Amino acid sequence: MTSDLPVLLAAVSVLSALHMGFQARRVGWSRMKFKIVPPIVTGPPEFERTFRAHQNSVEFYAIFVVLLWISGIFFNEVVAALGGLVYIVGREMYFTGYISESKRRLPGFYLVSFVLLFLAVTAAIGIFQAFLDKYL
Amino acid sequence: MTSDLPVLLAAVSVLSALHMGFQARRVGWSRMKFKIVPPIVTGPPEFERTFRAHQNSVEFYAIFVVLLWISGIFFNEVVAALGGLVYIVGREMYFTGYISESKRRLPGFYLVSFVLLFLAVTAAIGIFQAFLDKYL
Amino acid sequence: MTSDLPVLLAAVSVLSALHMGFQARRVGWSRMKFKIVPPIVTGPPEFERTFRAHQNSVEFYAIFVVLLWISGIFFNEVVAALGGLVYIVGREMYFTGYISESKRRLPGFYLVSFVLLFLAVTAAIGIFQAFLDKYL
Repeated sequence: MTSDLPVLLAAVSVLSALHMGFQARRVGWSRMKFKIVPPIVTGPPEFERTFRAHQNSVEFYAIFVVLLWISGIFFNEVVAALGGLVYIVGREMYFTGYISESKRRLPGFYLVSFVLLFLAVTAAIGIFQAFLDKYL
Repeated sequence: MTSDLPVLLAAVSVLSALHMGFQARRVGWSRMKFKIVPPIVTGPPEFERTFRAHQNSVEFYAIFVVLLWISGIFFNEVVAALGGLVYIVGREMYFTGYISESKRRLPGFYLVSFVLLFLAVTAAIGIFQAFLDKYL
Repeated sequence: MTSDLPVLLAAVSVLSALHMGFQARRVGWSRMKFKIVPPIVTGPPEFERTFRAHQNSVEFYAIFVVLLWISGIFFNEVVAALGGLVYIVGREMYFTGYISESKRRLPGFYLVSFVLLFLAVTAAIGIFQAFLDKYL
């Protein structure tokens, strides 16, 4: 029964969830390093960049999961899962880049944006085909 | 095989994901307009309203997706998908209203809250019926 | 047909979505109590703790939903759903604790972190088994 399940999408999703947890953890470590006690969210530039890097990942995480699964189920699971892996790499580039300097978040940001666009386009193609199959 | 897939839920989900991306983009444009470089998130009232409008959408996006799919699968796909379209319209009203003036976010907010409640109630009804089917 | 659907995961998801909505509502009530008009997000410590308590729930909500469903589908639905209930309890402990005093958020935070780790580990085990079934 489980042999029909989209195991690659699930694997990439769990990996991305762990990566999100790891980013939250690094915000916690940055709090300790600079002694910034919750609920305070302002402080030295490095802390604020770390905090915002995580927030940006949060802002896009649900969008990523939605597009990953719809692209993977309606278009192609392997292609979407590979896209998901590239997204995680882009998120890590974004996070580590942003912490060092604001501008260094950009390469990761472009990569992440490209993957989201790619997943959205492939999802739309897959939905269009499934729509024709189902209703016409 | 793809003819069994909830294609309307998928279509509304991708549309809502693109709308979320568009809102993030407008925060970026507002940053450029007022020259507010990340990680700064404070500035002129218009920028702060734009920033918070997007944040509010982010806060509710995963809730929306969860209720949309559960309502659509356990209650009725067409009804849930139409609810999802109204939600996106409400989010756009909220966003554009909020940018012009804080109080103008309210009509969109009420519409969005109504749709979420509607999806939650229909989801609960569908779950209750499925629970009776499966366990009793 | 509906008798095959993961009704327990759906029920816990809707419950958690309502709990998220309730937390957002309490931020709104805190705004009224301290007369803090949007888009302002700073104010007396109690308001800032309430605001941040909600934000933390938002940051983890999509991660929770992803792990809940993958653990429930690939490992065991009943176990994952019970984990989800404990997560909601932990979130409530976190929220009410945080509002009273920053340090009192910690018991709920540890419980919530433990559940997420548990769901991630069970999800990984389930994915590993499904991967062997499907590809080997």
